Parts: sequence; structure tokens; C-alpha cells
Amino acid sequence: MKIKEFSEIALNYKAIFFDAYGVLKNYNGLIPGISETFDMLLENDIDFYILTNDASRSPEQLAASYNSKGISCITPDKVISSGMLAREYLQYKVKHGAVVYLGTESSAHYLQSTGLKTLSVKDVDLNDLEQIQALVFLDDEGFSWQHDINKVVNILRKKNMSVIVANTDISYPVSKSEISIAIGGLADMVEEIIGKVFIRFGKPDAQMFMFAYEKLNAKKTIRKDEILMVGDTLKTDIIGGNKFGIDTVLVLSGNTIAEQAKIKISSTGIIPTYICESVVS
Amino acid sequence: MKIKEFSEIALNYKAIFFDAYGVLKNYNGLIPGISETFDMLLENDIDFYILTNDASRSPEQLAASYNSKGISCITPDKVISSGMLAREYLQYKVKHGAVVYLGTESSAHYLQSTGLKTLSVKDVDLNDLEQIQALVFLDDEGFSWQHDINKVVNILRKKNMSVIVANTDISYPVSKSEISIAIGGLADMVEEIIGKVFIRFGKPDAQMFMFAYEKLNAKKTIRKDEILMVGDTLKTDIIGGNKFGIDTVLVLSGNTIAEQAKIKISSTGIIPTYICESVVS
Amino acid sequence: MKIKEFSEIALNYKAIFFDAYGVLKNYNGLIPGISETFDMLLENDIDFYILTNDASRSPEQLAASYNSKGISCITPDKVISSGMLAREYLQYKVKHGAVVYLGTESSAHYLQSTGLKTLSVKDVDLNDLEQIQALVFLDDEGFSWQHDINKVVNILRKKNMSVIVANTDISYPVSKSEISIAIGGLADMVEEIIGKVFIRFGKPDAQMFMFAYEKLNAKKTIRKDEILMVGDTLKTDIIGGNKFGIDTVLVLSGNTIAEQAKIKISSTGIIPTYICESVVS
Amino acid sequence: MKIKEFSEIALNYKAIFFDAYGVLKNYNGLIPGISETFDMLLENDIDFYILTNDASRSPEQLAASYNSKGISCITPDKVISSGMLAREYLQYKVKHGAVVYLGTESSAHYLQSTGLKTLSVKDVDLNDLEQIQALVFLDDEGFSWQHDINKVVNILRKKNMSVIVANTDISYPVSKSEISIAIGGLADMVEEIIGKVFIRFGKPDAQMFMFAYEKLNAKKTIRKDEILMVGDTLKTDIIGGNKFGIDTVLVLSGNTIAEQAKIKISSTGIIPTYICESVVS
Repeated sequence: MKIKEFSEIALNYKAIFFDAYGVLKNYNGLIPGISETFDMLLENDIDFYILTNDASRSPEQLAASYNSKGISCITPDKVISSGMLAREYLQYKVKHGAVVYLGTESSAHYLQSTGLKTLSVKDVDLNDLEQIQALVFLDDEGFSWQHDINKVVNILRKKNMSVIVANTDISYPVSKSEISIAIGGLADMVEEIIGKVFIRFGKPDAQMFMFAYEKLNAKKTIRKDEILMVGDTLKTDIIGGNKFGIDTVLVLSGNTIAEQAKIKISSTGIIPTYICESVVS
Repeated sequence: MKIKEFSEIALNYKAIFFDAYGVLKNYNGLIPGISETFDMLLENDIDFYILTNDASRSPEQLAASYNSKGISCITPDKVISSGMLAREYLQYKVKHGAVVYLGTESSAHYLQSTGLKTLSVKDVDLNDLEQIQALVFLDDEGFSWQHDINKVVNILRKKNMSVIVANTDISYPVSKSEISIAIGGLADMVEEIIGKVFIRFGKPDAQMFMFAYEKLNAKKTIRKDEILMVGDTLKTDIIGGNKFGIDTVLVLSGNTIAEQAKIKISSTGIIPTYICESVVS
Repeated sequence: MKIKEFSEIALNYKAIFFDAYGVLKNYNGLIPGISETFDMLLENDIDFYILTNDASRSPEQLAASYNSKGISCITPDKVISSGMLAREYLQYKVKHGAVVYLGTESSAHYLQSTGLKTLSVKDVDLNDLEQIQALVFLDDEGFSWQHDINKVVNILRKKNMSVIVANTDISYPVSKSEISIAIGGLADMVEEIIGKVFIRFGKPDAQMFMFAYEKLNAKKTIRKDEILMVGDTLKTDIIGGNKFGIDTVLVLSGNTIAEQAKIKISSTGIIPTYICESVVS
Repeated sequence: MKIKEFSEIALNYKAIFFDAYGVLKNYNGLIPGISETFDMLLENDIDFYILTNDASRSPEQLAASYNSKGISCITPDKVISSGMLAREYLQYKVKHGAVVYLGTESSAHYLQSTGLKTLSVKDVDLNDLEQIQALVFLDDEGFSWQHDINKVVNILRKKNMSVIVANTDISYPVSKSEISIAIGGLADMVEEIIGKVFIRFGKPDAQMFMFAYEKLNAKKTIRKDEILMVGDTLKTDIIGGNKFGIDTVLVLSGNTIAEQAKIKISSTGIIPTYICESVVS
């Protein structure tokens, strides 16, 4: 598979879905030159959405991080996060009582914005779970892992309730060479120990793509073959885009490095339509 | 959880999604009295769709099996099968060449109807895979398991291509007490042996629900809280409906028998909104 | 399956292997009446060993906990722990350098007793891993879960080394109704995130049983059909004993409660030779 | 890791365990020059055993295949197969009734040699399972996959019994570029569909190594650090040998080819003590 220039490919589509981490930004901040990519999209009237497995911050906060670096076209409505889907689920399915969460207070604020009552795991009384209707894995920060993960296990043993994982990623990069376990990884462990089935939101699941697709089509009709998904990870971005029926670009600026791309494509059988160095070119 | 009458519940919704097997029919044919249930829906202007993990027959064939038994309101457009999603995927992603399939000739006819060139695994020449663009698991019948499943393994070792599983079910009932391994079970084995990642269509995946939801809303606007999913299996119908954000009914006329319902709900943590004996009442 | 008196069964064997937790003791201490069971064994010249998935303490410390409660026949040589097997492994395979561990200092003391140099994860310098030869999961206590588990992930990404899990259990009871995640559960999560293959010691693995069997036969020849395994957990004690070719007793004094025994046996297909209320009778 | 000459390494050990397929033979028959390797062992008084995941033939038949090609020192007592362990299990645990098997008649003959009554799956009457005490997965040949695997599923649903997998391998090579699904792969599928826990015999499990070790020590005392395991597969031979506490050689004449050895060692974390081109050198 030949490596192509991103701009050449992009011009053939009417809308582009971008993964955030590894595509638009990395541990150092925005990828240099990214603002020209967005200028190019605007000039050519190519619409876009950012699809990100993230439940730690609201779309407003996520957009602000781009705006503060000079990219003003990324408005909150352009950001579709797995946290949004989790929030939507809770709105539909939890009509009363409270939702317990594992994460920072800030990640819970976003849930509360719909009127949902939230409670941090650390504030739960194990002997009074009557009001608790659901449990959400939001973020890997903001709590004592040993104390609160064990508490989650015992909450779920005492009361049967829906469990939502608002970010399917099992790890995320924190520097050039180091990673951290993500909330999706902690949720997998608890699910295994408890033996129950959790509900997960995030790529590669079709729901993220559907959500963006509906938003696009609310403005004007766009067919699937006019949309391009750009991501750095085969097992979330690329297989998710492929399954949704849209073309896909694997970029080598993040999780999949140039030396391993060919081997990974061949060993997983997940085949992107194109490969590009990055979205800057 | 109290067992309720289905008709009482149904009247509170504007649309109902039904699973087919274990809900509308079983190994004996249609569940007795089912036509009155559909009469009730029509009288009360409640719309409906049938969501079925099945790629062995076209929606036309599936609808005909109801029509021949006197239920005329189940027209082909009311049937949404995992095979339809697989066919849509192949239309979008395979622009030339041929698709290899495991299944009956009849199951492949439906794929061909979109102009796709198909080839049974048994007719593939392992030394000439150039034209082959994708491989589809369609049905557990119509081929020699030993010969053709081994051939699939070697096709996938020789050429990297997309692999589609058009029915996620791992088994299906063939009589009151016996089951058969379904194509989804065979696909899981091949995936494990090959070490690649296959693309699956079928409940509990959100795509089935989205497809039905879009069809509903093309006619008139219906909110998610006005839709009910009815199924006999917690791990496909109920968790799929729950995750999609709609209310769910577990019926005890199929896969989940009355004596085990409580234990299964508690051990899986998959909680239906309601439980009914059947959809006939 | 009929519930039998333990003493009746025991008299038919020349040696008995006991699981510790749920069989001889629980969260409250020793199971009342247990000393009479050991008196009965001594009187009838029935040999015994305790096979326990535990790497938090040495056989000496484990034996002392019984001795202090008046059961003097449980000497250190009667205790076979998964930690012993892990220590033996490290002795054979690590000839120089240091072994990094996750656990309490006390759990590491036992490893050090063979001359092995150990280092707590928290004291490792991520930029100087040259001396590190292996990593051991010992105990769920004694470290910061968030900080040190993430550090383990990064150590294993930076240097390829053998990873040993000295206790396969994924959880353990801490009170009548609450459990804690065990070191085996944490190890499973790290293995999944890292994608490597760890080496595990503990039941149901045959090595525990072999170790006890060899000790027995060093004294006098005993055939497998003269040995009985007694445990409270189907997936470790019973299947381990069955696979090793010896008869098994499931006791209902621990992990498997009376109401669920039948269902668990039938759903797992793990069939004990006998079922007893407890070993006291 | 430097590639070394096998003979140089071998001379440092008192006993060697060999995997068969990919080490001593391949799809073409014996690896050329192998008889000189055995001459070298005999001359230097180095004992050996062959540890093979195979339940399709008896040790006698396996030895005969070497003898007929001129290697007379491989006598039946030198061959330790997973089928032997399965047979031993059945002898200890099945005292009456019959054992149902999936495999060739020839593979079942070996089981019958201990007086066990065996019955092919195809001859079982699903309505009369009273005499059936256990079910064994022996070989991937000798039965109709579609008919008999489905029948196995229904046998196990109707009667709770021990299930033994006499060969853990999920695939095996049939020519330079093609593989076949092995009985272990079929067993994995059935276990997943049935949801029960099967008992598996074969490398990497410690029992194979223990069996050989006991046989060695019945003749004269040999320590673990005087034994070498030679294999072509990291996930069976090498991790099995490592865990048992003995040194290991990965040969590049079978399953692990030279170009991939480094990547596989690094991605799995399974580290052989040495690497050799083959055992001929």
C-alpha cells in the first residue's frame, strides 16, 4: 500500500471524520501545521466532525482546547465524544434516582448538565444502594484505584444495575514512550471479576459514526461514499469506519508507527483505504 | 420483577421492534395467536419492525414465511436482517472483483441481487485469489464443514481481505431440545485460529436498531422513548435495545425460560424494562 | 448428588489435599471444629497437605496461623502455596540481576530467602532496567495501585522479561458479603493491556498437585486413587483435582453456597466426586 | 539473541525433551540429518524424550514412524503424548460405562487398550445417554464435522459429564503453506457454545513435562537445570518449558520462521534460553 498525501485524498470527499488523539494532537499538544489542514477543508467546503473516545471532558471543554491554540472552526457541535453517547443513554434510561461514577468531579459535571443526579463512588454508602440506578466508568483519574475499584465490585455484587463504560480505550499515551491504563481497561477487569455484561460507548462501535452521520445529514444529504474517516488506530478508527461503510485513512502520526503499519494491517486483517504520514501535507 | 401482559405494555408505545425466533415463531412454526397481536398493533396504529439475526434468506423470503401463514402485514420492508447490513457493507466497500461466501447458494443469491459477483468457497482456486476482495460467513448449511472451513482458513492466510460475519448468533434451536451451531459460531472459531479481526453484523450491535429507527423516522418523527424492543435473548435483543436507549421486553417463549429468567438477569446484569410470558396476551 | 458426611468419605483415602480458604478457615478465622477433623486424620494415619493459592506469606507464616489457634499438626512442610512454586521458578530461571515485585515487603522477604535480589516496583528507575530480569505479581497490598500498576505496564513495554503471577485467584473474600480484587485479577488486566503471555502459578494448574504428590511419595508410595482433594471452588480446587486424576469433595462452607451448588455444577460441567457441608462432621 | 549451533548447546545437558512436529519432522517426513543428532545424543549419554501434542496415534505407532526411517533409538517408551495423559485421566476417573469420542477409530483403539469402553459420537443414541460417562476430543478426522459436532453439543446439553480435550493444538500444518484446524480448535468452539469448562491435556501444561521428568528420575536423579526443552512454538513448547523451570531452545525449522522470531519473542514476552536454526548441526 503506497503512502499518499492527505490533501490529495481529502479533496475527493464532502465530509471528514477525524479521530483526535494521534491525528490532530498528541502528548505535546496540537500537531504542528494542523491549522492549515482545517483552512484547506474550509476553503473547499469540506465538512468535518471529530470522533473521540473521551468521557473526561465535555465537548465544550474539548473544543476550547483547540480554540485556545488558534483553531476556531472546531466548535463544540463539531465534537462527538463517547461521553456524549453515555450521557444520552443515561438520559433515556435513568428516570429517577442517582448514577454512581468512577472519575473526576469535572467528568461528572457534564453528566449532571442534563439534570441527572450523580454520586462519586467514594461517597456511596454500601448499605444504602436503593437510590442508585446505574454505574458509569468515566475517567481513570479522580479516585483511589484500590479503594474505589474494590468498592465498585461490591456495589455491583449487592445490587443489579446497568453499568456503562463511557470510553472503550484500554490505554492512552502520556508521553513519547509511556502509556497509562484508561478507564476502559479498568472496566474490563471489573467486568471479568463480576461476570456481568457492561454497556460500552466509543469507537469502533457504530453508534459514534451514526451520531456524526445524522448530524451531517441534518444539514444536507451526504452519501456514505462521500465521507472519509481518519484515524491512527486500526482496531478503533479504521475497523469502525470500514464497518460503517465509509472510506478510511490510517495516519502514522500516532498509535501506529510507520515501521509496524504493514505488519499490523496484515496480522489483524483490518485494511484502511489509504495510508498517510499525517493529516498535515 | 413482575410478569405483565404484553398488550397492556404495547399500547404505551408508537413503534415496536420484534425479534423473530423465540418471539414470533419457533421450531414448530408461528407461535399460536400471533396474528391477533398484529391485529392489535394495526388497530392502535402502532408501527413495527422485525429485527432478525439471519443471513440465510432475503427479507422477501422471510416475509413470505409469515404471509403464507396468514399474517399479511409483515411485508419485506418490515424485515431488517443482519444479512441486509452485510449486503449494504459489501455494496459500499467492494467495488470490483468477487466475494467468497460460506453458505447455501440461496443465501448468496440475495448478495448477488446488488450486482456483486459471488463465489462459493468450494469453487475457489487457492492459487488464484487475485479477484477475491472479501469473504462472507452467511449460513451454516450448504457446504462441507471439514473441507470448506479449512479452505477458508487457508484463503485468509494467503490473502489479506475483509471478512464479514452476516449473523452473530453462535447457535440456534432446531427442535424443542436440540440446537445447531450457527454460522457466527463457526466464524468465531476461524477468527481465533487466524488471529484476525472480523466485521460482524447483527444484534446486539447498534446498527440493526439504527437501521430500523431511520426507517421509522423517514415516515414520521418518533422519539426513542416511544419505541419498545421485544426479544427472547438477554445478550442480543435486550442489551442491544437497552444500549440503543429504548425500553425492552423479555418474553419467556424462546431462549430464556421462566425458571431461569431471574437468575440470568441477575448474573448478567442485563435488565429488561418488562417481562412477559409471550407477545400473545 | 447426595450430600455426605466428610468423615465417612475421608476414611477411604490414605491422603487428603485441603484448600485453605473456605475449607479450613474463612474471614472469621478457623472454621469451628476443624481441630477434630485433623485429630481424626492423625488417628487414622491419613496424611494431608494444604494447597493454597497464596503468595502473600511464606509457608512458615501460613502454618503459624493454624498453630497459634491450637492446630499443631499443620507444620510448614504441610503447606504448599502458589508462592512456593513461583519462588522455585525464579530460583531456576533467574541466575543474576534483580526481580521486580508488586506486593508487600513481607511477601518479597520470602523470595529473598533464596538469595534472589528483589526490588519493589516503586523503587525501580524506568531509565535503568538493565539489572531487572523478571517481574512478579505477589500481592494486591503494599503499593499504590494507580501509580505502580501503570509503572509495571511501562516497565514491560521498555524491556522484554518473564512475568510471573504467583497467585491465579482474581478475587478473595474479606467479609461475609464483600470481596477484594486479588493480584491475579490485576495481573490479568496488565496482561490484556500489554498483550504478552504471563506465567501463572496456582490451582487449577497441575503443578500444585504434582508438588504435593511428590512430597507424599517421597515418604511412601501412594496411588492417585488413594488421594482426595477437598475444596470450596469448582474452577480451581475441583477441576484441578479432577484433571490430576484424584477424587474430589466440594464443601459448601466457602465460595460455593448450598443453594447454588447444583446450578454451578451443571452450568460449568465441573463435577465433584462428592459434596459435603464442610470438613467438620 | 544470537543463533547458536544445537550440538554445542546440547552437550551441556543430561537430558533433552523434543517437540516432534517442526523439530524432528515436518510435512515432508523426517528432517534430513536428524539421525546424526540422535547418534550424538547416544554417544554422549544424553537421555531424551519426545513430548508431543497428539492423540491420533499410540506411542507405539508414533515410535514406529521414526523406526521405519532408520531411527531405532526412539522406542515407544520415549514418546510422551497428550493422548497418553488423556488415557491416564480416563483410567482414573471413569470406572464404569462408556466414553464417547470424536476422532478416528484408530485413535480410539488406544483408549480401549486399558479396558475402557468407547463409542464413536456417530453411534450414540441421544435418547439413551445413561451409560455415557465422559466425552473425549481425540482427532479432527474420522467423522462428519457438521453432523457429529452438532451432536456433541446436544449430548453435552442433555447430560452433564466430564469433557476431555486430548490435544490442545488449534491447528497443524498439512503442507508447506497450508494448515488444518486441529481437534483443539474444534473443542474450543464447542466449549464456547456450551459454556462449560473442558479438561485439556497437552503442552504448555506442566503435566506433559512432569510425566517426562518422572520417567527420567525413575532411572537416575537428574536436576531441572540439567534438562533442555527443544521446540518450534513459543506458546506451547517454550513457555511450557520455561514455566517448568528448565532451559529452552527455540528452533526455526517449524512454526516460527527466522524472520519473525525476534518480533514474536518481543510481542509475546516468551523468551527462550537459546535459538538454533534446527536440531541438525
